[in-house]
Amino acid sequence: MRTHYCGHLRATHVGDTVTLCGWVDRRRDHGGVIFVDLRDRTGIAQIVSDPERTPESYKLADSLRNEYVVKITGRVTQRPPESLNPKLATGEVEIYADQIEVLSAVRKQLPFQVSTAEQEPVREDLRLKYRYLDLRRERMSRNLQLRHELIKTFRRFLEDEAHFMEVETPVLTRSTPEGARDYLVPSRVNPGEFFALPQSPQLFKQILMVAGCDRYYQIARCFRDEDLRADRQPEFTQLDMEMSFMTQDEILSLNEEMVCQVFKTLKGIDLPRPFPRLTYAEAMGRYGSDKPDTRFGLELVDVSDVVQDMGFKVFADAVSKGGIVKILPIPGGNDAISNVRIKPGGDLFNEATTMGAKGLAFIRVGEDGEITTIGAIKDNLTDEKKTEILQRTNAKPGHLLLFGAGDTDTVNKTLDRLRQVVGKELGLIDPDRINLLWVVDFPMFEWNAEEKRLEPLHHPFTAPHPEDLDDLKTARAQAYDLVYNGFEVAGGSLRIYQPDVQQQVFELIGIGPDEAREKFGFLLEAFEYGTPPHGGIAYGIDRWAMLLSGEESIRDAMAFPKTQQARCLMTNAPSPVDDKQLKELSIASTHKPKS
Amino acid sequence: MRTHYCGHLRATHVGDTVTLCGWVDRRRDHGGVIFVDLRDRTGIAQIVSDPERTPESYKLADSLRNEYVVKITGRVTQRPPESLNPKLATGEVEIYADQIEVLSAVRKQLPFQVSTAEQEPVREDLRLKYRYLDLRRERMSRNLQLRHELIKTFRRFLEDEAHFMEVETPVLTRSTPEGARDYLVPSRVNPGEFFALPQSPQLFKQILMVAGCDRYYQIARCFRDEDLRADRQPEFTQLDMEMSFMTQDEILSLNEEMVCQVFKTLKGIDLPRPFPRLTYAEAMGRYGSDKPDTRFGLELVDVSDVVQDMGFKVFADAVSKGGIVKILPIPGGNDAISNVRIKPGGDLFNEATTMGAKGLAFIRVGEDGEITTIGAIKDNLTDEKKTEILQRTNAKPGHLLLFGAGDTDTVNKTLDRLRQVVGKELGLIDPDRINLLWVVDFPMFEWNAEEKRLEPLHHPFTAPHPEDLDDLKTARAQAYDLVYNGFEVAGGSLRIYQPDVQQQVFELIGIGPDEAREKFGFLLEAFEYGTPPHGGIAYGIDRWAMLLSGEESIRDAMAFPKTQQARCLMTNAPSPVDDKQLKELSIASTHKPKS
Repeated sequence: MRTHYCGHLRATHVGDTVTLCGWVDRRRDHGGVIFVDLRDRTGIAQIVSDPERTPESYKLADSLRNEYVVKITGRVTQRPPESLNPKLATGEVEIYADQIEVLSAVRKQLPFQVSTAEQEPVREDLRLKYRYLDLRRERMSRNLQLRHELIKTFRRFLEDEAHFMEVETPVLTRSTPEGARDYLVPSRVNPGEFFALPQSPQLFKQILMVAGCDRYYQIARCFRDEDLRADRQPEFTQLDMEMSFMTQDEILSLNEEMVCQVFKTLKGIDLPRPFPRLTYAEAMGRYGSDKPDTRFGLELVDVSDVVQDMGFKVFADAVSKGGIVKILPIPGGNDAISNVRIKPGGDLFNEATTMGAKGLAFIRVGEDGEITTIGAIKDNLTDEKKTEILQRTNAKPGHLLLFGAGDTDTVNKTLDRLRQVVGKELGLIDPDRINLLWVVDFPMFEWNAEEKRLEPLHHPFTAPHPEDLDDLKTARAQAYDLVYNGFEVAGGSLRIYQPDVQQQVFELIGIGPDEAREKFGFLLEAFEYGTPPHGGIAYGIDRWAMLLSGEESIRDAMAFPKTQQARCLMTNAPSPVDDKQLKELSIASTHKPKS
Repeated sequence: MRTHYCGHLRATHVGDTVTLCGWVDRRRDHGGVIFVDLRDRTGIAQIVSDPERTPESYKLADSLRNEYVVKITGRVTQRPPESLNPKLATGEVEIYADQIEVLSAVRKQLPFQVSTAEQEPVREDLRLKYRYLDLRRERMSRNLQLRHELIKTFRRFLEDEAHFMEVETPVLTRSTPEGARDYLVPSRVNPGEFFALPQSPQLFKQILMVAGCDRYYQIARCFRDEDLRADRQPEFTQLDMEMSFMTQDEILSLNEEMVCQVFKTLKGIDLPRPFPRLTYAEAMGRYGSDKPDTRFGLELVDVSDVVQDMGFKVFADAVSKGGIVKILPIPGGNDAISNVRIKPGGDLFNEATTMGAKGLAFIRVGEDGEITTIGAIKDNLTDEKKTEILQRTNAKPGHLLLFGAGDTDTVNKTLDRLRQVVGKELGLIDPDRINLLWVVDFPMFEWNAEEKRLEPLHHPFTAPHPEDLDDLKTARAQAYDLVYNGFEVAGGSLRIYQPDVQQQVFELIGIGPDEAREKFGFLLEAFEYGTPPHGGIAYGIDRWAMLLSGEESIRDAMAFPKTQQARCLMTNAPSPVDDKQLKELSIASTHKPKS
């Protein structure tokens, strides 16, 4: 129907007669001459019509409105010097419209402007309801294209450089042991029974290793029926990988190569390799987080040993109860951050209490090197301990030292949060910097205080570190997360392939033989028939697409997202269904609508 | 962990020390020398161990059993001339095992042999239950690999040659209007409401065209809750495409190029282009089928006009009631097919009645050109009509002419079936031949006699032929199916993009404005804001993989299929779930288990 795409026209086409199809991005009337910006997926071309040179099309050109779909035939002409538009790829030419055909008109008021010339912010509910208009806009069109390129780059690396095979695993399956809530699908043919949508292809990818598949990947749709946060969706996409006969180092190295390919292809950036590796213990110690943003310093310092016996009850209690006292040292913080902000009601105080802290002790280092601090510290701090603290935190005049004291988890969460807020505020984060690192040696288990039992930090198939087999309770796992500027963007582990180790892990987390058989029976059975050492990793595609697009919500990195109430505003799904359908499925709704 | 894959070793590696990992395909003891076929994804390497040359590994080698997972280090050695195995890619070398490590043993009796040396047929239920063992076997491993290559080839053509963009559409969505039963997913957050799993991304891909996406593709998982036939699965995969501003010819041509790429890449075959195009009317006329296998002749001949007034009531009634009389002419059929087989109780008679026919009239042409036939024809056939029939069917001595008479649909179904059975029996089908053709110009609607109303043959968005707009009821559709050796392997259409035409179609099929708004409201709304002319097509990936693998069931072309009772024998999905889960979803099972 067309001879060219709009965005591809250049000065070399001058003199050609072309046919273009697309949307009217906007129409302008310059004293009897009509200019139409015609838009398609590739960009914009300027169409011209006037009563003298293109009398046949003029009337129609005049009648065009924004977002009409038109087909235009005309001669490509060099623009006069004063009309050249260097900002536009097609800015050297314009097309005199000999023929215009309106393929489709706009019959309703546009809910918002689509034109690339418009940059007005639009309410998200409108964008989601009229997603087809939102996706026409330059920003979303670019985001979808980037997501496509991202997935393509992953695929091609895996297929061409690393001999991975793509295998599709079922969507209608059994509950997987990821811990979140499953979406269920009633079975009509087997009444009273239900399929579950997969939270990940975890069991299937391990089965594929038992099946000798060697290197598997899939761009897999996953489903979790959880209460949604800003960066969660009921269905999401992950790049899912599993491989046999590889050590952790081999797996990390292969993945680094792939990630470098992604940055090279999408951003033209060569990242240095290998990526830094932090143990979980180091990451928690230095940053209070297992996904630290290492683009800036502000590293935490543990001073538990120094302050536990200084006579300040808060510190002493924290340590004696098995907790910790840590400092977030902020160079220049003495000037930048006032006491009002740290004390009750202040914004930093609030950040801290949101994360569970009771308050914020501090030390300020004056220009003369003298410190100011709260009474309880001032009254108790010996010169020796003061010197030790200043040395350990490398504090110089102008430093502000913020204390966290309490149970380790709360202290880390609090200081991690404050570190991020302060780092941002003080302009310490270079937005162009790309810091990728591996966090390794996660603990196998964490203590679930509520249910009073050990829980696997990842999942019950994660392999323990071979040096730690003597005491699995405190063992490190052969697990690894990839962290990108403070976001966890991939995570995985080696898996247990020895039945006796698996047995011990189940016992530790309180899964008896019956429950194990019920939940994972087919995988355990499979392990009886010759299981290769194997491990895997999964990448959150939505988050990658979001970060690489420079967006702050994953909803802006997918075509048809759902709201935080798990609704699609465009199709209005979910929706009520006929009783007949439910009857066929042998289920009934127990919901009583409020009258 | 390894230095090489088993299947990659060649004579050039002789002298190297290599480490291999894999499964024991089989172990043989040749007078104190142990030979182990070690298998990985790439093939098999022969490992040797004997008490003299490899004393350290000998005892372990002797203890190996089939399907043990082992790691072997040893020197690659040239095989002695008498042991060369030209059937094996690695058949020039063997590896003397200096070290053997058993990574994982087999702790149970194998339910069937995995070895490539074994070709015993295995019951399908066992294969599905122990799918991880079945997938290790050469046949299924090859099938999975082929499926991967197939999808890869489709993708690369679309991305590299045709500028398509992959977009992911939701799996949790609203009912789509495909006519089959939906799988439903209860919404927890919106109690009393349900998502549906998509029968295809039809509405979303059209929305993407409205969104200016221009060329979309997706390897999409689709779901239909139907009673399963041999080649159906509850979830299946389709290559889904949609494109804007293209004519039907442009779409078919692009698709031919892609299909040729697939055959070239996977089979090394250059197919001639363009593919033949048959109208629906021609296909039904000549083959009685809209997916004819054109690898052989046996074309049907309509003789309604000749026989309607010959005095044979069956023929006369058929035509007078709006039906048809057609002949399947079978060269050599006079000898090959006995009367017993055509008459009541015979196999061909049974085939015919299965398809709805009441019986089978016939004419046999003797070597002398004289005919033998049933009494009712013999008694009534004039010489003139006889000559006309023989000429029209191009009947020669030895021909058997089988008659179908009745309503058009039954006659076509019957003779299509007989044509296939006879074609196969007479060896007329060259299994190496690849016949691809387009069937075009489908009718827009078919009559649903039960519900006494017109139904769209494809779906209600299919565009009518522009020449037939005057009478939509009898209009041809701009729809096309790709047929490969008698299988429909792709199908699509141009879509309606003019609201008034859409309106007329809805009226014809009895969908009022309210129902239209309820079912497709968001798509119709989208069409108000500037809709490009667009069309699309979808390829059944499972069927393609089946046909290209030479398999007869799509279950052999997918990794984890379900049975015809929609169960997964490996995971035992679907399964009962906790009442707590149902309660959270505000549903209850109404199934009363029989006690």
